[in-house]
Amino acid sequence: MAQNDSLSEFLQTAVEAAKRAGEIIREGFYQTKHVEHKGLVDLVTETDKACEDLIFNYLKQQHPSHKFIGEETTAACGITELTDEPTWIVDPLDGTTNFVHGFPFVCISIGLTIGKVPTVGVVYNPIMEELFTGVHGKGAFLNGKPIKVSSQSELVKSLLATEAGTKRDKSTVDATTNRINSLLFKVRSLRMTGSCALNLCGIACGRTDLFYETGYGGPWDVAGGAVIVKEAGGIVYDPSGKDFDITSQRVAASNPLLKEAFVEVLQQSE
Amino acid sequence: MAQNDSLSEFLQTAVEAAKRAGEIIREGFYQTKHVEHKGLVDLVTETDKACEDLIFNYLKQQHPSHKFIGEETTAACGITELTDEPTWIVDPLDGTTNFVHGFPFVCISIGLTIGKVPTVGVVYNPIMEELFTGVHGKGAFLNGKPIKVSSQSELVKSLLATEAGTKRDKSTVDATTNRINSLLFKVRSLRMTGSCALNLCGIACGRTDLFYETGYGGPWDVAGGAVIVKEAGGIVYDPSGKDFDITSQRVAASNPLLKEAFVEVLQQSE
Repeated sequence: MAQNDSLSEFLQTAVEAAKRAGEIIREGFYQTKHVEHKGLVDLVTETDKACEDLIFNYLKQQHPSHKFIGEETTAACGITELTDEPTWIVDPLDGTTNFVHGFPFVCISIGLTIGKVPTVGVVYNPIMEELFTGVHGKGAFLNGKPIKVSSQSELVKSLLATEAGTKRDKSTVDATTNRINSLLFKVRSLRMTGSCALNLCGIACGRTDLFYETGYGGPWDVAGGAVIVKEAGGIVYDPSGKDFDITSQRVAASNPLLKEAFVEVLQQSE
Repeated sequence: MAQNDSLSEFLQTAVEAAKRAGEIIREGFYQTKHVEHKGLVDLVTETDKACEDLIFNYLKQQHPSHKFIGEETTAACGITELTDEPTWIVDPLDGTTNFVHGFPFVCISIGLTIGKVPTVGVVYNPIMEELFTGVHGKGAFLNGKPIKVSSQSELVKSLLATEAGTKRDKSTVDATTNRINSLLFKVRSLRMTGSCALNLCGIACGRTDLFYETGYGGPWDVAGGAVIVKEAGGIVYDPSGKDFDITSQRVAASNPLLKEAFVEVLQQSE
């Protein structure tokens, strides 16, 4: 009971932090069109930094004993090792390219791990006004309404989400498009939205059936979404079918019915 | 003046028809999760048909002398030749796969050609509540606010939209992914949303910088969006760089600054 109480409190804190940061993102999102290129780079950096500061300050104020891992902090100070302590893992602005272009798939992702297990997740898209939440053992929600993964059991009827990534060396790009080529013969169609955290939420609410991505930024892209997928009845795993490792930059997600067949075609397409 | 008056009236008719059809789509969109597979196919067909009937009946009532081309009608009765007469070209539900999966990129596309020139365009996404409109010589709007294409002039900073299409024979899929492979070295990143009409509107409001698609359904996918792109300061052309032919199932769109470089990389990637 005491633990449930804390989890609800942690969720509430995360939602409040995400909503406050959402205001900053929303403001910047509608400004990008009116800013010159040089100013644009500054706007993105400033928005990212302002959101991370706001979120970390707020969370630290509420939970001073907790640990914190963030994209900006990691970029500045190097990787913080994930321990068993309650640890907030935050991406203050997922979908930076979308933010720059005004493509509406941007979000704040906040995850809390306890004993290295993702336990509370909040992913908030302030442009589309969609707040995804999940708490270990308590279900997943979109704007307060319960969500669940799709019930699809056939690959050929499944909608796949993935990304083109950011690396542009020949071997990475070839591997990406070869895999897409191979998967297109197996699934119904393909979507690319440009946000890893929102791709996980897409699986959680059944908008898409399959998602994989390798080489994304870090644990902050998946810590929030992973809880939400699991609490929506889905599973998060390594594209090889092995257990998901939050620090590995490799993720796949689906409902349980599709996992085996999806892993098989992912393996064939490697 | 008389012609301007008629164009405003045509736009008003199209907006009203789109909004009415939008209610039907919105209702179906939130039902798909609760319908069994067999029922789902019926729901899609019924929604598509109900929207087309509603739109055509409404437009015919207002403009009895006009001609009409629609996806459903064409499927049933064969291709209607496009003449110089005022002709309404309608896709009652663009993004059918998205509709089935609950992925929010679905829309109604209504275009009016006069002398074969796309003259009035309405693209309405009833899920994201986005109404794109354009009238020849009168500008383009999103929910009543003026929109314009991006001012990007460099491919390497451009966001590209395209689609995986629906054909799954080896030569089509190989051509699709080879082209994507080649383009990924030239542009910033890639988005796939599953709606041709909304991809055109994405160019019009500067969310994306580049769009091409070949082998889409028919003129109903592009008739509305083409006007909106042009009125937002963009251009619509054949991926070869030649003039756009609304009946050719080949389209590219961007701002004028990017056309030459985009056509060059599209040619190289063929």
